[in-house]
Amino acid sequence: MAVNGLLQKGPGGPLVLIGGAEDKDGECRILREFVRLAGGERASIVVITTATRLPGEVGEAYRRVFLRLGAGEVLPVHLDSREKAGDPCHAAFLQRATGIFFTGGDQLRISRVLGGTLSERSLKAASLGGVAIGGTSAGAAAMGEIMIAGGRGGRSPGKNTVKMAPGLGVIGGVVIDQHFAQRGRIGRLLAAVAHNPHVLGIGIDEDTAIIVTPDGRFNVLGSGTVTVVDGRTITHTNASDLHPQPMLALTGATLHVLPQGYGYDFKSQKPYSPGSSF
Amino acid sequence: MAVNGLLQKGPGGPLVLIGGAEDKDGECRILREFVRLAGGERASIVVITTATRLPGEVGEAYRRVFLRLGAGEVLPVHLDSREKAGDPCHAAFLQRATGIFFTGGDQLRISRVLGGTLSERSLKAASLGGVAIGGTSAGAAAMGEIMIAGGRGGRSPGKNTVKMAPGLGVIGGVVIDQHFAQRGRIGRLLAAVAHNPHVLGIGIDEDTAIIVTPDGRFNVLGSGTVTVVDGRTITHTNASDLHPQPMLALTGATLHVLPQGYGYDFKSQKPYSPGSSF
Repeated sequence: MAVNGLLQKGPGGPLVLIGGAEDKDGECRILREFVRLAGGERASIVVITTATRLPGEVGEAYRRVFLRLGAGEVLPVHLDSREKAGDPCHAAFLQRATGIFFTGGDQLRISRVLGGTLSERSLKAASLGGVAIGGTSAGAAAMGEIMIAGGRGGRSPGKNTVKMAPGLGVIGGVVIDQHFAQRGRIGRLLAAVAHNPHVLGIGIDEDTAIIVTPDGRFNVLGSGTVTVVDGRTITHTNASDLHPQPMLALTGATLHVLPQGYGYDFKSQKPYSPGSSF
Repeated sequence: MAVNGLLQKGPGGPLVLIGGAEDKDGECRILREFVRLAGGERASIVVITTATRLPGEVGEAYRRVFLRLGAGEVLPVHLDSREKAGDPCHAAFLQRATGIFFTGGDQLRISRVLGGTLSERSLKAASLGGVAIGGTSAGAAAMGEIMIAGGRGGRSPGKNTVKMAPGLGVIGGVVIDQHFAQRGRIGRLLAAVAHNPHVLGIGIDEDTAIIVTPDGRFNVLGSGTVTVVDGRTITHTNASDLHPQPMLALTGATLHVLPQGYGYDFKSQKPYSPGSSF
């Protein structure tokens, strides 16, 4: 099972994958948890702004909020070229961090700039070494081995409207979607899983996160829900057919909707709530 | 199984339930099929405009399109009060029709005006007698025994954000949602099924219809897809909990996405495509 890939390739440190639009002004439940996992007042957090077109503004906003939430130090780094991402000086920033956070923007920029570079290797080594890795929106999408790179929500699911691309592979066996309920993305997540039934589809709502723990589970945190699509039970799909029907057909998918207090165990491949597994 | 209720209470005649915004200018695949099922050039179609605030305009639009598609005669009837709906003269229109079509608007207007009246009884008698019944948007939603009366799409699914009400009960064992992908309504359909796991959730996209046939199946027709949520496999839900968690939790739901050429058999409770069942 590729979901087991998570355990082989997955994090030694925790992962905080956020569906975008997380609270930055109020209680900041999610970002506060990221700072805690990164070491709290001893945290040294690198903010990677590669995905955004406004790196100065976005990097500074996260610097301020992480400092306000008690992080020891916060350093925005704008890796905007493969040259920079391959530079040992930049990669060294990642090696010294106790937390690495990817902002939102366009996930293809993350994979195109970092993919296969020294910075990507430093990132994975940091994760295996116990460093907390976080990402919001595009920054969450890019963490999988494969990622959804595009495909409009709020329309009938087509067989070929979801665009897939390789991600950074910090976590294996999953495909992450974000802004999930808000942008009506169930169709594209189902299409992604129909094409890749060996991976678990995880759709994360805004202001909601999954906290992937080193023991191979995730817990849900935040104000929305996380939708899990398990493609192992699919009995039929036309995803790979040459048939002219352009719309998606898919039968027998298993769906879980998980709010805060619930989670998912990658080992047993089942959702759970405190005290019980389903 | 309440899904069997479909067969006990369900139509003797065909049902055409449309997710709204069906093609009225081009090929008109769906409305053309309704006219055919109503008898084609021998069809006498009553258009019930109760749901809409623009009964004159909407009724005239459907009159024109049904005539253009070859219907023998088309009569818009605006039942805007329980008094009218209880009037034997109005109910008699329904008894003479070979097809009865409900326009879109607000499904609560349909159930509040027609519920329990002579016109509702005439409608059900007509359906049992083989008359084709159609409805688009609110007109489709109101055909179930229970219906979704409200609940915003495009947001994280809450336990209690879906509003349910009794429908006209032309078809039992199902809850119908419409404008499904376009308005991001998977969350509210899942919440409806979590509260009513004995009914089958059917989400119909725009310009898409299910054609329910007297042998207890439906076929999908149109340019989008139909999403079926089977709640029988649900292993856990917090829908009825007194727990303060406001968001929906639901695990183990079974999901089918069906485009034109696919369908669902209420007897075997399985989806199918031509030549195979899944």
